Amino acid sequence: MIVIMKPKSPMEEIINLKQKIEGENNISVNVIQGKEYCLLGLIGDATEVDADKIRANEFVENVKKVQQPYKLSNRLFHPDNTVVKIKNESIGGDELAVIAGPCSVESEEQIVSIAKDVKKSGAKFLRGGAFKPRTSPYSFQGLRDKGLELLKIAKEETGLPIVTEIMSIDMIDKFVEDVDVIQVGARNMQNFELLKQLGKIKKPILLKRGISATIEELLMSAEYIMAGGNENVILCERGIRTFETYTRNTLDLSAIPAIKKLSHLPVIVDPSHAAGIWWMVEPLAKAAVAVGADGLMIEVHNDPANAKCDGQQSIKPKVFQELMEDINRMISVKMNREYEVINV
Amino acid sequence: MIVIMKPKSPMEEIINLKQKIEGENNISVNVIQGKEYCLLGLIGDATEVDADKIRANEFVENVKKVQQPYKLSNRLFHPDNTVVKIKNESIGGDELAVIAGPCSVESEEQIVSIAKDVKKSGAKFLRGGAFKPRTSPYSFQGLRDKGLELLKIAKEETGLPIVTEIMSIDMIDKFVEDVDVIQVGARNMQNFELLKQLGKIKKPILLKRGISATIEELLMSAEYIMAGGNENVILCERGIRTFETYTRNTLDLSAIPAIKKLSHLPVIVDPSHAAGIWWMVEPLAKAAVAVGADGLMIEVHNDPANAKCDGQQSIKPKVFQELMEDINRMISVKMNREYEVINV
Amino acid sequence: MIVIMKPKSPMEEIINLKQKIEGENNISVNVIQGKEYCLLGLIGDATEVDADKIRANEFVENVKKVQQPYKLSNRLFHPDNTVVKIKNESIGGDELAVIAGPCSVESEEQIVSIAKDVKKSGAKFLRGGAFKPRTSPYSFQGLRDKGLELLKIAKEETGLPIVTEIMSIDMIDKFVEDVDVIQVGARNMQNFELLKQLGKIKKPILLKRGISATIEELLMSAEYIMAGGNENVILCERGIRTFETYTRNTLDLSAIPAIKKLSHLPVIVDPSHAAGIWWMVEPLAKAAVAVGADGLMIEVHNDPANAKCDGQQSIKPKVFQELMEDINRMISVKMNREYEVINV
Amino acid sequence: MIVIMKPKSPMEEIINLKQKIEGENNISVNVIQGKEYCLLGLIGDATEVDADKIRANEFVENVKKVQQPYKLSNRLFHPDNTVVKIKNESIGGDELAVIAGPCSVESEEQIVSIAKDVKKSGAKFLRGGAFKPRTSPYSFQGLRDKGLELLKIAKEETGLPIVTEIMSIDMIDKFVEDVDVIQVGARNMQNFELLKQLGKIKKPILLKRGISATIEELLMSAEYIMAGGNENVILCERGIRTFETYTRNTLDLSAIPAIKKLSHLPVIVDPSHAAGIWWMVEPLAKAAVAVGADGLMIEVHNDPANAKCDGQQSIKPKVFQELMEDINRMISVKMNREYEVINV
Repeated sequence: MIVIMKPKSPMEEIINLKQKIEGENNISVNVIQGKEYCLLGLIGDATEVDADKIRANEFVENVKKVQQPYKLSNRLFHPDNTVVKIKNESIGGDELAVIAGPCSVESEEQIVSIAKDVKKSGAKFLRGGAFKPRTSPYSFQGLRDKGLELLKIAKEETGLPIVTEIMSIDMIDKFVEDVDVIQVGARNMQNFELLKQLGKIKKPILLKRGISATIEELLMSAEYIMAGGNENVILCERGIRTFETYTRNTLDLSAIPAIKKLSHLPVIVDPSHAAGIWWMVEPLAKAAVAVGADGLMIEVHNDPANAKCDGQQSIKPKVFQELMEDINRMISVKMNREYEVINV
Repeated sequence: MIVIMKPKSPMEEIINLKQKIEGENNISVNVIQGKEYCLLGLIGDATEVDADKIRANEFVENVKKVQQPYKLSNRLFHPDNTVVKIKNESIGGDELAVIAGPCSVESEEQIVSIAKDVKKSGAKFLRGGAFKPRTSPYSFQGLRDKGLELLKIAKEETGLPIVTEIMSIDMIDKFVEDVDVIQVGARNMQNFELLKQLGKIKKPILLKRGISATIEELLMSAEYIMAGGNENVILCERGIRTFETYTRNTLDLSAIPAIKKLSHLPVIVDPSHAAGIWWMVEPLAKAAVAVGADGLMIEVHNDPANAKCDGQQSIKPKVFQELMEDINRMISVKMNREYEVINV
Repeated sequence: MIVIMKPKSPMEEIINLKQKIEGENNISVNVIQGKEYCLLGLIGDATEVDADKIRANEFVENVKKVQQPYKLSNRLFHPDNTVVKIKNESIGGDELAVIAGPCSVESEEQIVSIAKDVKKSGAKFLRGGAFKPRTSPYSFQGLRDKGLELLKIAKEETGLPIVTEIMSIDMIDKFVEDVDVIQVGARNMQNFELLKQLGKIKKPILLKRGISATIEELLMSAEYIMAGGNENVILCERGIRTFETYTRNTLDLSAIPAIKKLSHLPVIVDPSHAAGIWWMVEPLAKAAVAVGADGLMIEVHNDPANAKCDGQQSIKPKVFQELMEDINRMISVKMNREYEVINV
Repeated sequence: MIVIMKPKSPMEEIINLKQKIEGENNISVNVIQGKEYCLLGLIGDATEVDADKIRANEFVENVKKVQQPYKLSNRLFHPDNTVVKIKNESIGGDELAVIAGPCSVESEEQIVSIAKDVKKSGAKFLRGGAFKPRTSPYSFQGLRDKGLELLKIAKEETGLPIVTEIMSIDMIDKFVEDVDVIQVGARNMQNFELLKQLGKIKKPILLKRGISATIEELLMSAEYIMAGGNENVILCERGIRTFETYTRNTLDLSAIPAIKKLSHLPVIVDPSHAAGIWWMVEPLAKAAVAVGADGLMIEVHNDPANAKCDGQQSIKPKVFQELMEDINRMISVKMNREYEVINV
């Protein structure tokens, strides 16, 4: 961490601040006198030094971080990729992990039929919302507990592990019992009370990036879960909010190599929610594979025009099958480099 | 709602869609044939028609909303300003409501001392965080239950009603008992499970705009609370996330006249969190008053350099006093127009 | 175009507006009376109707466009892909067009050496800046006329057509003579005086998307050039400005299928400027190919650490060669669908 | 400037880089060895050191600037406010400078009538576009040379100095002769060739912030003009592009105190273009005065519903008069602090 003092700050105040920082932390402070600005360089583990607190000093112009503020999710301290095991499958290893299914569970027939279809095409996990976060209180809110029951039936029929979204702390016990991967949606990425409780269990957590979260904030939210003791965290890029309105959000594929470099956690891509348009799912899914994602999360519905939510971004089983064939061709090609961004 | 069909859509499909929409909703549909595009105009209350579901039809190019999707918070159906009563004070009436206090409660001495100072300068409410949402799990998380106790002591000493942030459903009972205004922070603006529960109580709710929430989304979140039966909702603009990094967020003061026009709910401004820089609080607070806000929420600390959080954006009691004097001068001046945007 | 009248607008005013619109344009106007709102539906070619002018009517609540405001660049009126011919090469046809070279031309030895390297690896065009738009007046501004001369030498040595950026109208004559593709940089995407003049020549124009331009605005800028008579326009996505700061800009790959659907013009991707980080160029270039781009524009430098500009985002010739090998493997794989988004 | 080396960089490479930086610049470099990272602190005037060039070194993780990259516009080296003199008026001094007039000049009658009206209400400058940058080539492009002539007539009739927008280098001679303040529009803020030429004249330049320009980039563009020798630069905040679509752009009033602190140049606010909605102009103009702007630029039209452009954001002369009365009342009130942000 580097502290930039205001021009013409009295040396006495600079020394006071140096001593205060050293006194409150296990840190030593170098004073560097530049032409206009005097700087303090903090030597040691500055992860837990509160930059805003230093900024509150009236002689401080600005504070710049040198080290990332996350530790457990940081590749610097954990060079090898984390592979999250779920039943007989895994996310983060050599194989691309594909999660597919409808936006929301609507009926036994619907979820079982889609589960069978996506399994046949090569999906390894079944997604389906039981509890749905909707912008409007007047929209369909999901089948809730009933939806979880239907997911379990689909799992029995197909063997596919279940991925579904949790919305509050009081659901945790039930999810631990019924669900294979607990999804934290974009809107709850900074629901810190929920994250803390999810840190106390062992279930894999699929943590989606908030629509206006920086990559650093996403990793800090993963850190909340890991700091509690749960290291089974899978990250998911699903589009960020920008000024462009043609797509619902803007898929940030640069985030994939960035996260690969900064963290050892697996990261997947959800092109369906990012675009919000079904015919964009195919090209964006292929781009996600090409950019180095560990997996995909794709909305598939057997009757999009009558889906209870997000039909406009769901692809039909046949389109999903063709997409999987194309992706398999893509990954069959040997590449010179498999994105060794870790070492650059 | 207007549905734009794809160019060259078969008339049969257009009629099918018309009948489907009419069958599922209490709506009649006009077909308008343009030069390139055919349009469907939905006549009736389209608030509960799901635009995305229509978008999922393969012959639909796009759907445009005509009517706002919120009803209870909509000024169209409730022309008069809502005034929220809290003890002997109110927010949304003729007087500017000023909420002041530290970012977080740190000790009895601290909170009581600041409460007395801000009351003397004219604040009508005391703010102070007991439960703190922090980006890092390694940062100070608030005194939690202890913090609530200290707030109650400060209230006893000064008579100021308390405004403090709730972070999860299981805290509601305690907050109903101890707190006068329950704040929902920006990160929880779309924590819909929480909003639903807050709809079931009668306490005033201070709902902060999420850093990437549109004005419409903010009003939809208010709608969640109101649809549950709690109409005591106060909105708060506190800065949005943009590309500019000089300030922590960008205070969107245009949102104030916009919300005044769209909704009857009171709306206040928090310049402290928006800017994240203490010396900007003064000019931004005055601008908020000039633009027509119903109140202000300002961080005041007696020792910012040693505050446990957000010291860099807190002003000292003396600065707050001068600010209040200036604001009182401003509002003493009679204006030609008091922003009758409602009727434009 | 749909005009939404304010609730309770007098019918007389609605009729006045209808007649005014019909009188000023070759348009007929349907009046649709909804429950709360009255709408006007404009039938005919509304491309040249000025929405803002209608918005200025005091009884108008809002105006929604139905039809895209561009015509010459619109796929609706020109279903087949445009293929831009440049010497013996083309952009927009079946083959991926790769443009490569240094950010700026620095010396004869540098530009000739890089040109030979990228040609050997399969690039079809040489890029290199002679006139450089730099944020700071104190940064290297390019070799200017001397740079153009060196580009011509590199072209003579390798046969590669030259792509380079123009910065003002007075350079057009020289560029027409010396250059094969005239690039309009992101900062000049809405330099309308320049666009108008470029519409009067026949040289292919590579039009880069402004960092905060919507897809529609990009197509409107293409329309300026085409309206002047020059239909040889190639679009380029090069990253947009968002809140994320890890990358210089956020590459918006969704823009590629979006543009393919909306327009017949070819569109390429510049991953170097988008990311601003050399080790991201490889994965993003592959993603651009997977998403369906017609070409790539890549910064290659033989000595990035001593480059006069943008060394941090330039890859070395050896890395470029490996990237080209990987891309060739990718495009050798036959896909089920070649993104027929045009017809969806 | 601080250079952060990659963890485990060889000491030899660190020393090489130190020597290279010292060799190429008049700078001395301190090496600071932290726990994980080694830092280089650059001592001296680093304004002209190219951070991107250092970033291109393969052992460099990141580079952080300490000092602002602008000099001539920097308050650090020029503590007193710049006051730009225009005829008998000035911008940047004790009085609020109000510029008013129509978006575009349409006829002699129109511009003279509006000029008289706004003068009577207290405007000190007349605005009016002769050359109009329009998103669509099919929109009204301004009366061009004819418009300049009409502006001169209005000036003769009222004595009000003229502010109007320039769009390319070849117009400079004419503007120097006919115009009192030359406006550079948001779209041309980084048209560096134009800025360089405007640096060679003495006319005051009104430089509008680009819709996606940071405050630092705005000041760098001012620096281009000042580096050429023209120090008569007035800055203008006119809204930035964000995700919020209710307003055309988001007025960033925090930019005013920020610019006041960073620079000695005067800064005014254009609420009309920011909001794009006429009934927001009043509250936003008052907020701009309250936040400390040196002036306002306001669109006034005698017949907005028939204006050739931007009628929807123009206020009528009567509304302007009431606004001016209100503003005069506001500034008649004595404040405790006149935003001495300069010294904080």
